[in-house]
Amino acid sequence: MADALKIGIAGLGTVGASLARILQQRSNELAVSCGRAIRITAVSARDRNKDRGVDLSGITWFDDPVEMAEKGDIDVFVELVGGAEGTADNSVRAALKRGLHVITANKALLARHGVELAKLAEEKGLLLNYEAAVAGGIPVIKAVRESLTGNNFSRVYGIMNGTCNYILTRMEKEGLTFENCLKEAQRLGYAEADPTFDIEGNDTAHKLSILTTLVFGSQIAVDEIYLEGISNISIEDIHAARDLGFRIKLLGVAQRTETGIEQRVHPTMVPLDSVIAQVDGVTNAVALESDILGELLMVGPGAGGNATASAVLGDITDIAKSRPGAQQVPVLGRPAHLLEPYRQAQMRSHEGGYFIRLTVVDRAGVFASIATKMADNNISLESIVQRSENGAAGAPVTIILVTHATMEDAVRKAVAAIKGEGYLVGEPQIIRIERPKTA
Amino acid sequence: MADALKIGIAGLGTVGASLARILQQRSNELAVSCGRAIRITAVSARDRNKDRGVDLSGITWFDDPVEMAEKGDIDVFVELVGGAEGTADNSVRAALKRGLHVITANKALLARHGVELAKLAEEKGLLLNYEAAVAGGIPVIKAVRESLTGNNFSRVYGIMNGTCNYILTRMEKEGLTFENCLKEAQRLGYAEADPTFDIEGNDTAHKLSILTTLVFGSQIAVDEIYLEGISNISIEDIHAARDLGFRIKLLGVAQRTETGIEQRVHPTMVPLDSVIAQVDGVTNAVALESDILGELLMVGPGAGGNATASAVLGDITDIAKSRPGAQQVPVLGRPAHLLEPYRQAQMRSHEGGYFIRLTVVDRAGVFASIATKMADNNISLESIVQRSENGAAGAPVTIILVTHATMEDAVRKAVAAIKGEGYLVGEPQIIRIERPKTA
Repeated sequence: MADALKIGIAGLGTVGASLARILQQRSNELAVSCGRAIRITAVSARDRNKDRGVDLSGITWFDDPVEMAEKGDIDVFVELVGGAEGTADNSVRAALKRGLHVITANKALLARHGVELAKLAEEKGLLLNYEAAVAGGIPVIKAVRESLTGNNFSRVYGIMNGTCNYILTRMEKEGLTFENCLKEAQRLGYAEADPTFDIEGNDTAHKLSILTTLVFGSQIAVDEIYLEGISNISIEDIHAARDLGFRIKLLGVAQRTETGIEQRVHPTMVPLDSVIAQVDGVTNAVALESDILGELLMVGPGAGGNATASAVLGDITDIAKSRPGAQQVPVLGRPAHLLEPYRQAQMRSHEGGYFIRLTVVDRAGVFASIATKMADNNISLESIVQRSENGAAGAPVTIILVTHATMEDAVRKAVAAIKGEGYLVGEPQIIRIERPKTA
Repeated sequence: MADALKIGIAGLGTVGASLARILQQRSNELAVSCGRAIRITAVSARDRNKDRGVDLSGITWFDDPVEMAEKGDIDVFVELVGGAEGTADNSVRAALKRGLHVITANKALLARHGVELAKLAEEKGLLLNYEAAVAGGIPVIKAVRESLTGNNFSRVYGIMNGTCNYILTRMEKEGLTFENCLKEAQRLGYAEADPTFDIEGNDTAHKLSILTTLVFGSQIAVDEIYLEGISNISIEDIHAARDLGFRIKLLGVAQRTETGIEQRVHPTMVPLDSVIAQVDGVTNAVALESDILGELLMVGPGAGGNATASAVLGDITDIAKSRPGAQQVPVLGRPAHLLEPYRQAQMRSHEGGYFIRLTVVDRAGVFASIATKMADNNISLESIVQRSENGAAGAPVTIILVTHATMEDAVRKAVAAIKGEGYLVGEPQIIRIERPKTA
């Protein structure tokens, strides 16, 4: 049997502690399936005295992850520190420079520095694995890098933020407001004290930027993602969606178009009877559309100590089974120096269906005016629903339009023209519709 | 760059021809991602003169796959012949004995001889890859063997036969009978002229037997799978299921219980709002339940030339990236000589919910008698629905019972006792209920 693989874990939060526990508890099984033992030889975290439910005796402690990367007696550096800059970045670079394989669960780091880090790893023939960075326990990175080799991708999309999906699910099931669901999510530990990063879509964008590069072979371009969060979604939208056969999910979508690659994160109407519409609560889902395979959808836990540790463990065992000199799977699907420039498609030229909810004053001619503005912009309508809020004469009226596939530019122009007419009450709500290939 | 990897393809049907076409069309991209070229150097099929839309010039033709395995100038033998015995078996053995890596899409072969073949491959340090053998294009084998390493599995289940799922979907959506849907499936090429193997569950059983071994580490035991097909499912069952919040799917299920491993293929009620219930038509789905990750569900095309070829292609590129001396992933998840004996759990001791549909003569006391027989066997009921077929007095009445979790033995005894009372019209229908962990 080969020498034991020596692991250094930087960061002993929920994921790090789970990982350490599992590596210790399952050491025999892992040795059998990998053909060698896997041993934690070094760890690094802030508080040395905290009880994490793991026996750390005999394991070298480092106060500084960078020092562990530089001096630890380890073969693999596991980065679970988090954050795009500072310690995480410095320690991963130090590890690669020293010739260590690296595993990270850090989407922010990869979204910012992924291409550089991939180059560094590839120049040295090292593995840089990051299954846990996108959609937690769902093995989507492996599926793209290893199972769907040779496929040309047309679209990748998914529910990649458990906090948002939890909030949207509870809003629908219990008729609660966004604010109430957010509070509940915070109480249960599904949302941070400052939830901005999750609910405004930034977290999804980080994950999407990595997937985009993997499937389309372009440079990571996290700053060029169109971003819209869910804080603007009301119960009325959710109910109207349901009545029209849709459910609202926060999706990250990357899509190849004639003018470039679209990357967008926004609340999205998906058909009620589609598989992804049933993905509830904190669960994640990622769909891959490609020319040879067709559509592959993977559903599973996107966060949590154990689920994330499971993904890291898969990365570790892949390294344990590899041998020096073996051809490595390129970190980002193709060698980093061969990634193409990112050619951004403009949101104005996005094509798709739209859900438009307008609240208008109840007066003659409004409906006709709206229909005319749509027609003026060549937007054809799939359905139109008009309902009075409370039936009282003179009370504002809600009008919901669902369009056939049209250009975003046309929708923006039509809505601007409608706004100019002065009969709108409040802001119009516009939600894009996304249809799975197979449903 | 390393030498080209030389591929021999045995069998040029839909899958083989797709594979050959893709390998030729995508040769540049594949060479970049694998670090070496992949070349077809030999093929074998029955009819040399058939036009398959592939350029076979310069490729050595063998009339006999065994001869190709023994003498072809190839590194990898791809078996797409089919069948558990004869040519497929002989050629795969010949290839392994000669020291060639083998890829097969042949579930019947693996269900019958998988353990022996795995031993042969492992003794010689060869790869035996078979992603396409279970659920077609869905990379479930890779997920279990490589991503979920270290997880202990509790249950694996799935929709693994497109023919059955197509028929059940159309029956529900269009209110057609089983016979009509089968004919339609045959017309569209989704069902064979003799559909027995698909609709009676044998095909699902083959796939399930392989998954069972992978997740539970026991010997393949395809003959010990409880089997019930879908030919017995009526529109009435489908409608009653829907009314009670269920949909009927043919599932293969393997589950660890206290008395051993349950393996069963049968029509199954799944909750209408579960993700797997939305998997329609010829699409497949496989769910893996394990202790670290939780539940992972993968949905994708389970058959078809391209989807199957995509899985074979993933297997090929895995071999292209591997190097002599690398530790191989054990063929069946753990080394074949370490597989445990299969300990079969009896269906009588299966625990779960049951849907029971009885047609009875319309006379006083029948309902009470049925309720009493259930109570006598300690079966507690979740719901009871009684409806007259056409409302006419004296016409037979349908009674539908949904039980809470109970033992199969109790259900069988209760139904036998009910039968003994003489008020049943026709055979009772019994369908097991399966609930996903997360929904």
